[in-house]
Amino acid sequence: MKKPYFKKRADDPEPLRGMVKRQIRFEEVDMLKIAWHGHYTSFFEDARIQLSDRYGIGYMDLYAHGILAPIKTVHVDFITPLRFKEEITIEGILHYSEASRINSEYIIRNKKGQTAATGYVVQMMLNPDFELFLTQPAFFKKFCDKWKAGKLL
Amino acid sequence: MKKPYFKKRADDPEPLRGMVKRQIRFEEVDMLKIAWHGHYTSFFEDARIQLSDRYGIGYMDLYAHGILAPIKTVHVDFITPLRFKEEITIEGILHYSEASRINSEYIIRNKKGQTAATGYVVQMMLNPDFELFLTQPAFFKKFCDKWKAGKLL
Amino acid sequence: MKKPYFKKRADDPEPLRGMVKRQIRFEEVDMLKIAWHGHYTSFFEDARIQLSDRYGIGYMDLYAHGILAPIKTVHVDFITPLRFKEEITIEGILHYSEASRINSEYIIRNKKGQTAATGYVVQMMLNPDFELFLTQPAFFKKFCDKWKAGKLL
Amino acid sequence: MKKPYFKKRADDPEPLRGMVKRQIRFEEVDMLKIAWHGHYTSFFEDARIQLSDRYGIGYMDLYAHGILAPIKTVHVDFITPLRFKEEITIEGILHYSEASRINSEYIIRNKKGQTAATGYVVQMMLNPDFELFLTQPAFFKKFCDKWKAGKLL
Repeated sequence: MKKPYFKKRADDPEPLRGMVKRQIRFEEVDMLKIAWHGHYTSFFEDARIQLSDRYGIGYMDLYAHGILAPIKTVHVDFITPLRFKEEITIEGILHYSEASRINSEYIIRNKKGQTAATGYVVQMMLNPDFELFLTQPAFFKKFCDKWKAGKLL
Repeated sequence: MKKPYFKKRADDPEPLRGMVKRQIRFEEVDMLKIAWHGHYTSFFEDARIQLSDRYGIGYMDLYAHGILAPIKTVHVDFITPLRFKEEITIEGILHYSEASRINSEYIIRNKKGQTAATGYVVQMMLNPDFELFLTQPAFFKKFCDKWKAGKLL
Repeated sequence: MKKPYFKKRADDPEPLRGMVKRQIRFEEVDMLKIAWHGHYTSFFEDARIQLSDRYGIGYMDLYAHGILAPIKTVHVDFITPLRFKEEITIEGILHYSEASRINSEYIIRNKKGQTAATGYVVQMMLNPDFELFLTQPAFFKKFCDKWKAGKLL
Repeated sequence: MKKPYFKKRADDPEPLRGMVKRQIRFEEVDMLKIAWHGHYTSFFEDARIQLSDRYGIGYMDLYAHGILAPIKTVHVDFITPLRFKEEITIEGILHYSEASRINSEYIIRNKKGQTAATGYVVQMMLNPDFELFLTQPAFFKKFCDKWKAGKLL
């Protein structure tokens, strides 16, 4: 079995999940008639934006509270290729962490429900001087506290 | 013969010209194994940026003088398709105008020197309140005066 | 008033229309915080694909009948800029023609219903040897005849 | 110190290296005025294509020998953001493997020579029926044998 991208500690709350749909566009398909691998980060972003908006921790929400959240790591595992016009669902899964980072996981499924790709993204949290927050900034900590208290699910 | 994209009046100075090279990338090629039409605006932009930088009238130069130069019109005529790895030259041609706009024309040629596509772009000039300049803003007028005086070619 | 992109002759049937929705994505927005102009051809393509699929004259439908339909001309007029997350509708309008080409027009509107951009696309019809059809190929003519007979609207 | 992306066994030949230059384009930069993370896979691809072409193991070379080489994994670690017009070098590093896969590593450096990002790509080798090769296909094995014999460096 595949090793999990992120480890859940015993007292971490359940991950937060969201799902978006998307159809493979003509210009996303390459000469081999499959979706070009470089577009999957864009698929992930769709789910991340939907999920972070729902919980009020989107780029702009964080920015308004003096937090930059640039991407530190992107990882994609490709399993089944996707074709032109194929309808996909992208599941975004936000994993709880007490660090100053946002850990998210993604599962792309084709119409038959087969997993087409999986992956993860790690975002750091920086202050406006581009310095890493050593502990979670207040705005984000508040969100995590709610999450841990079961008030988000 | 093709109608010219821009009319040159008798006393207009000669256009300014620049040339850039580029190779068709894997992800720019579609299922039909030709460069996807939507990427040609990016090819044009390469030549426009090179040309406007050379003459000190790039986006950022203008912006520093309180001038926004958003794109008003893009037009592309496709002639010969381009393939993966094909090396192209993109010629940018800046046409003189006394209006508050930037008129530029483009010719994309393949390695054999055949014209693969032509087109044009019109940019407006706006002040920081997004209002059209009724006459050429001073910074741009100075550039046009030099051009007309034959000091740029 | 703006000149129409395509002229309707007295006995041409009414254009065929379709509408798709789309949201401006993070990666489509540039440093000036507006959708980069090069992405509008992709917006147009969304509407074109929806419209041509509905009437059975999509790329692949034509291809299956020995017809290639590469793009000959793209034209975009930009009116109001679009921002991150802005929801747009893209109206595609297929204009009747008795030539071996497909003439389509596009109107992009923002959420307030304002026209953000307009434009048009011309596709040629070629046979598999990349030769222009001098008269409409049978498959496409059948579609046009139905259209003219009022059986499509 | 960072863990290496790929482990070199004692008797593996030295990796093969190649370098390409590229400049950050206007449309690659996002609202935060840095190159959007999703474009880095395209930066990697530039180096991969240059490197694999040089050694005759590009997509099309493999394809001509009945080998498909789809991407199995992409991983990017972002270190220093890249700005509009910034000139970067992308170093591609091909790691020796006796498996039916291609392991490549990438280092993107900015003009000051600082590492802006690192990452890796794994490609599988499939036959035309999309079945994994259990052992290296002959064409690729020949390339690996030359490499091991020191005839490529």
